[in-house]
Amino acid sequence: MVDTGNSVRKVPAPELQTSAWLNTPQPLTLAALRGKVVVLHTFQIFCPGCVQVGIPQAQRIYQEFDPERVAVIGLHTVFEHHPVMGPDALEVFTHEYRLRFPIGIDKYEGAPQGIPLTMREYRMQGTPTLILIDKTGDIRLHKFGHISDLTVGFSIGALLSEDFDEAAAEAKSLQPEGISDGCDTDGCSV
Amino acid sequence: MVDTGNSVRKVPAPELQTSAWLNTPQPLTLAALRGKVVVLHTFQIFCPGCVQVGIPQAQRIYQEFDPERVAVIGLHTVFEHHPVMGPDALEVFTHEYRLRFPIGIDKYEGAPQGIPLTMREYRMQGTPTLILIDKTGDIRLHKFGHISDLTVGFSIGALLSEDFDEAAAEAKSLQPEGISDGCDTDGCSV
Amino acid sequence: MVDTGNSVRKVPAPELQTSAWLNTPQPLTLAALRGKVVVLHTFQIFCPGCVQVGIPQAQRIYQEFDPERVAVIGLHTVFEHHPVMGPDALEVFTHEYRLRFPIGIDKYEGAPQGIPLTMREYRMQGTPTLILIDKTGDIRLHKFGHISDLTVGFSIGALLSEDFDEAAAEAKSLQPEGISDGCDTDGCSV
Amino acid sequence: MVDTGNSVRKVPAPELQTSAWLNTPQPLTLAALRGKVVVLHTFQIFCPGCVQVGIPQAQRIYQEFDPERVAVIGLHTVFEHHPVMGPDALEVFTHEYRLRFPIGIDKYEGAPQGIPLTMREYRMQGTPTLILIDKTGDIRLHKFGHISDLTVGFSIGALLSEDFDEAAAEAKSLQPEGISDGCDTDGCSV
Repeated sequence: MVDTGNSVRKVPAPELQTSAWLNTPQPLTLAALRGKVVVLHTFQIFCPGCVQVGIPQAQRIYQEFDPERVAVIGLHTVFEHHPVMGPDALEVFTHEYRLRFPIGIDKYEGAPQGIPLTMREYRMQGTPTLILIDKTGDIRLHKFGHISDLTVGFSIGALLSEDFDEAAAEAKSLQPEGISDGCDTDGCSV
Repeated sequence: MVDTGNSVRKVPAPELQTSAWLNTPQPLTLAALRGKVVVLHTFQIFCPGCVQVGIPQAQRIYQEFDPERVAVIGLHTVFEHHPVMGPDALEVFTHEYRLRFPIGIDKYEGAPQGIPLTMREYRMQGTPTLILIDKTGDIRLHKFGHISDLTVGFSIGALLSEDFDEAAAEAKSLQPEGISDGCDTDGCSV
Repeated sequence: MVDTGNSVRKVPAPELQTSAWLNTPQPLTLAALRGKVVVLHTFQIFCPGCVQVGIPQAQRIYQEFDPERVAVIGLHTVFEHHPVMGPDALEVFTHEYRLRFPIGIDKYEGAPQGIPLTMREYRMQGTPTLILIDKTGDIRLHKFGHISDLTVGFSIGALLSEDFDEAAAEAKSLQPEGISDGCDTDGCSV
Repeated sequence: MVDTGNSVRKVPAPELQTSAWLNTPQPLTLAALRGKVVVLHTFQIFCPGCVQVGIPQAQRIYQEFDPERVAVIGLHTVFEHHPVMGPDALEVFTHEYRLRFPIGIDKYEGAPQGIPLTMREYRMQGTPTLILIDKTGDIRLHKFGHISDLTVGFSIGALLSEDFDEAAAEAKSLQPEGISDGCDTDGCSV
């Protein structure tokens, strides 16, 4: 059942760490998206659940909501088979699947291997993972695997309804970010 | 694109006029549901778009949301083929499709013929029609035909986020209801 | 796995016993369809598995194959809730779902109650049931519940490939029909 | 409508020209499959129509039919974006999508570029393309794009029903193969 109470405790969303972007003239940062609800869809191009379920859902969200209020962002979080899921392959995939929303490439400390930085920082369990970030930059939903359109739509509706105090958000953004120990599959808590 | 601004002007939802109910020990009234978001799904048992798309969506909504906060109601609004869509047929349909949410039967002035009273009062165009009513009893979404789960979920999320002032709602309910002339396909305005 | 050997032993298909027909100027008989492969789809209008899966499959078969070689026939075999699934309701259902293939109404000995005659004679377990009859009038596939398009297509392809000896078929049709004791869920054997 | 007459004139299927194979201990040849119906599914790993429609259909065929009678073969015919669709990427794709049927890699004259040899020889228009080859090694169906399960099933049923004269097939295989000028989208004719 949908958690209509949004009881998940708020945790600041760590900034994205990316090595490149597609579908955007310049790199995106969560900091610059304060005031919007951010839908972060993380995926891998050879993950069947991503290609068959997650990506089409991200496209639907991108098509149905006003980008001025809801920012849909893809994040390619490659944690396996790195040699065949590089930037060139992602670019072909994005082109062939006609994806239009901005897609960042999760960064590695050195050469591509293991779990990339953003994925690790968010403690994601795998792909696909959908993360909703509110107007103030807090993580409000963190879901590995399938999530229904009703639930995603509901959550976007609830988050968009929240007031946004620009000054307070700015003050908050001066504090150090980082995700603390209370994360589990369905969300994160401080 | 989803109207994330909920710009539809608010109109009081006329009370349901029903001749019988299924799946509930006693008749429901919108008046008694103040404080909840009401999802009113109107259908006919021989309407393919209802059976294949609308009813399954209503079931998903019923399964995903807390009934204490979101009331899913079916309304059988028979405006054609009345002899074969009577209460007995509806009961068999409801049983065979394992529908669990309350379903009212829209009422006629006399014998079943033409457009029933609630359907006429709401100026519905046909079936299926989905209507969302906010906590104070106002119509906030009125959609004939298909509507995506994302949009329905979003709208429920937005409406649930609204404050509910019981006293104000009560005061309002003392005023005469009735839908005024500003209704069109996608909503109603005063 | 598809039984590519068609090992089901052949059993003469009992003649249809019907009280009325839709979508055909005159009643159909299996006898008159010798030389064609017959796809007999039995259903009830309030059976969800029929409406959601069986009927759409019958429509696809009807649309994809040449009616001169493959005869798609619906059979309304009402074995429960008789009062609300009469001829008038079937006619509305057929109209609203835009079904174009001939549909017979399975007959009762007296008033509509219990299992109708054809359904009993064929020892069907319920609805939907798909029955394939070869050019000579023998039952070759008898399936209660869901069956894949691949399997149905395959079976039609195999049966259409069989030679048809009109004289032999005629001789056979002079013998008394009737289904013997070897029937089970998946087929019938003498 | 399904061409129930299989009127496509028969053309010998050119032998597969491959550089490597997955899911089989040793390379397959059409010559060694005489006596079976061969379902050749050609695809590219970044082709949405292949991944979403063609590959799942090939898997269904592989699961439903007896491999002793129906040989399902994948063929990776990369004609664009060669650098990111090499053997390593195909292997990861095959692993992640849990494909079990043998998959060959279409060969190039030199380095991977342009249209590979088998694809060119068969005059395929693109991916996905489904080709059915009969027991004697003749192409009997050649379809670019989507094809329904009913039609594929039907065609397999028809081809499996054909007699197979081993001696005649052997004699035929001594003649030079090669596809002549009468090929178009839907088939080939001599």
